[in-house]
Amino acid sequence: MKSILVLGTGLSATYLIDYLEQYCDQHHYVLTLADQTLQIAASKKKSERTQLASIDVTSPELLEKLLEGNDLVVSMLPARFHLNVARLCLKLGIHLATASYLSNEMQALNDEVKSKDLLFLNECGLDPGIDHLSAMQILNTIRAEGGEITSFESFTGGLVAPDCEDNPWRYKFTWNPRNVVLAGSGGAVRFIHNNQYKYIPYHRVFRRTEMVHIPEYGRFEGYANRDSLKYREIYGLDKVETMYRGTFRRPGFSKAWNCFVQLGATDDSYILENSEHLTNRQFINTFLAYHPTDSIELKLRQYLKIDQDDVDLWEKLVSTGIFTDDKVGIPNATPAQMLQAILEKCWTMKPTDRDMIVMWHKIGYTLDTKQYLVESSLVCEGEDAHHTAMAKTVGLPLAIACKLILENKITQRGCILPIHPEIYTPVLKELESFGIVFKEQTTLS
Amino acid sequence: MKSILVLGTGLSATYLIDYLEQYCDQHHYVLTLADQTLQIAASKKKSERTQLASIDVTSPELLEKLLEGNDLVVSMLPARFHLNVARLCLKLGIHLATASYLSNEMQALNDEVKSKDLLFLNECGLDPGIDHLSAMQILNTIRAEGGEITSFESFTGGLVAPDCEDNPWRYKFTWNPRNVVLAGSGGAVRFIHNNQYKYIPYHRVFRRTEMVHIPEYGRFEGYANRDSLKYREIYGLDKVETMYRGTFRRPGFSKAWNCFVQLGATDDSYILENSEHLTNRQFINTFLAYHPTDSIELKLRQYLKIDQDDVDLWEKLVSTGIFTDDKVGIPNATPAQMLQAILEKCWTMKPTDRDMIVMWHKIGYTLDTKQYLVESSLVCEGEDAHHTAMAKTVGLPLAIACKLILENKITQRGCILPIHPEIYTPVLKELESFGIVFKEQTTLS
Repeated sequence: MKSILVLGTGLSATYLIDYLEQYCDQHHYVLTLADQTLQIAASKKKSERTQLASIDVTSPELLEKLLEGNDLVVSMLPARFHLNVARLCLKLGIHLATASYLSNEMQALNDEVKSKDLLFLNECGLDPGIDHLSAMQILNTIRAEGGEITSFESFTGGLVAPDCEDNPWRYKFTWNPRNVVLAGSGGAVRFIHNNQYKYIPYHRVFRRTEMVHIPEYGRFEGYANRDSLKYREIYGLDKVETMYRGTFRRPGFSKAWNCFVQLGATDDSYILENSEHLTNRQFINTFLAYHPTDSIELKLRQYLKIDQDDVDLWEKLVSTGIFTDDKVGIPNATPAQMLQAILEKCWTMKPTDRDMIVMWHKIGYTLDTKQYLVESSLVCEGEDAHHTAMAKTVGLPLAIACKLILENKITQRGCILPIHPEIYTPVLKELESFGIVFKEQTTLS
Repeated sequence: MKSILVLGTGLSATYLIDYLEQYCDQHHYVLTLADQTLQIAASKKKSERTQLASIDVTSPELLEKLLEGNDLVVSMLPARFHLNVARLCLKLGIHLATASYLSNEMQALNDEVKSKDLLFLNECGLDPGIDHLSAMQILNTIRAEGGEITSFESFTGGLVAPDCEDNPWRYKFTWNPRNVVLAGSGGAVRFIHNNQYKYIPYHRVFRRTEMVHIPEYGRFEGYANRDSLKYREIYGLDKVETMYRGTFRRPGFSKAWNCFVQLGATDDSYILENSEHLTNRQFINTFLAYHPTDSIELKLRQYLKIDQDDVDLWEKLVSTGIFTDDKVGIPNATPAQMLQAILEKCWTMKPTDRDMIVMWHKIGYTLDTKQYLVESSLVCEGEDAHHTAMAKTVGLPLAIACKLILENKITQRGCILPIHPEIYTPVLKELESFGIVFKEQTTLS
């Protein structure tokens, strides 16, 4: 009999828990759901066999006690807690699985993890996660045929389902709003295009977008992620001429978002004076030159060169409420925190809203002197506010990988990513039974 | 008999050393010139009485030995070395004077410095330095008359003399080129305008300039410094409605410089791939989208929306050589380092070139229900490549302050700035005899 512990049972763990509960019930395994708030863990429990526990992440002793006796720990905690959990797993000899980025600190444990014959699986959610699984399957298939990869582009977006796009941005927060507000900040974007290294500073990222058409879902625009070159080596693409990774939004989003970037309203590096007293309108005015009589609207238009007839852009800005006299009311706030609070009032999902995940890869390769292009796309719509596409696409790959670990079907050891056929083949196959299916098309180019 | 030690004898110390040599000869004091490179110290020595020494900043023991027995240390070393020098001065009971910003670490020594009856004078060069002296004299004069200060604006620029403005930017490096390339970066600009706090992100700083006319010298444009609010308390201007500090360039400089900022060419946060192999032209192309045939010139124009007939701006860009096939040739360089190397080829002073310092204050105040405006400006032209206006305006205030310290005419103790009448009155008075004279004009507004 095996024991599995899930740490963190929030919204994103819904599908993961449902899957693991069913699986553990079938095999008479012990599943424990642990959360800082016991009620949250309790609300996710469906089976009588499932156990509940509360976590105190500030106490290593209590955490160790909780981990003891388990065969596998799945951490859905915020990424900053993973390292402590990993160290305890190492000490206690427990496998670990997360959907978070493999940190350098985690990677440093690799030799020790291997020497203890353990598996610490990272980046096995959506993005990172399904992007790795699906990309590696395509890449390795091409390689097996003798093809040589020349270009790799990949975009993912967490959006709202088409019938719920009821604001001019066609966007709502379906994931951590702070990450959305800070997206692209913190350093220049790097990528490679036809063997030329290219760099985009933060203040230009949202004006260098690419338009992509996804069958049945229309057009999306992608802006570049910071880390486009990061996976070259991992994917075995060291010689690829073009490598570009990005984020999807609906067309027009980036141009409007760029207004906030240009103003400096996404800056998270300093505290605004008197932030608790500022109205939305005054917040915007802090970034505009002083004038005794000119309106904030006109000053903004002039500063950002927004044409009088650019109705689409202007409608987006107005819809956020930035020109209203509402008070934000946060003391000692950064511009980014203020903007987030303003946007949360209009970009929060209604209970009836459904989210949507869109992923798209475009991979170029040569085979027998011919140039081919593979386009592969995934769209996943959420069912409701609790059964979101995000929770499904983050939780299911991780849950299926957990099953593979428990069934000893993964031979890899150490701190790994899900880039190996023994992981991606069965996970992708089983994801199809949940409706997570890529549509693939190969054309001569 | 007193002993004075000058640490660092580079270009910026020329006037300081000349002044102190004369003064020490008169009073039969011992002056020691110390530099990492003994020849540099030797080249500055004019009097037989002056002693020479070499510094090894990596050895606290040698540095302590050098300092021992002196009554006053003047540090012209790079600012990062000041703290170690200050700690030794504290230990050995020696006064200290520098032209550098008072750091938090230095400020933390304040109580100890006071308790040992010592004076550590900071920010007594040009900017910071003469700006403090001249501003405080005007402010305190207004206050003495019963006036209330309502606004304070101050700009300083290190430029070239009008007859040496022989490139389209009307600018050359007359000081640390790295600081010029990185100017404004590292965080948002903050200032206050008519009681409204205002913020400008780095990528907008060079488009929010102010035009100023200086009699006989024509127009200058000023862009905002990051630290406009820093001196509110120090100057006693806590209730001032407008406070703005900035840097002068010739009109058109900022708009053209903004092209580099927009490209991301001033970024110092990452290393360019293959930087040692890039030509100037390829360096610029790394920031532009890939295209198999379009020219870099056209891509740049389109990206930065530079009109075909904006000849002035285009001429500036072309004059820097950014479109040439010259190789920069620096391995592991950041964009800012590459740009600096390119600009050093065209913005370096010729031996016959003379530099120029321009400082300007605009101070508003109310007195007897009337609104007044004081404009005070200083222009100082260099004599030649060695006797620069920069060296003169940095070195002389510090040298004169040293004299005051040696003559026990400064009663202040601790880590201070030259904002006290007992310092600024005699220093400004003596500066006049060197041709460093402010022109002041008060008008009803």
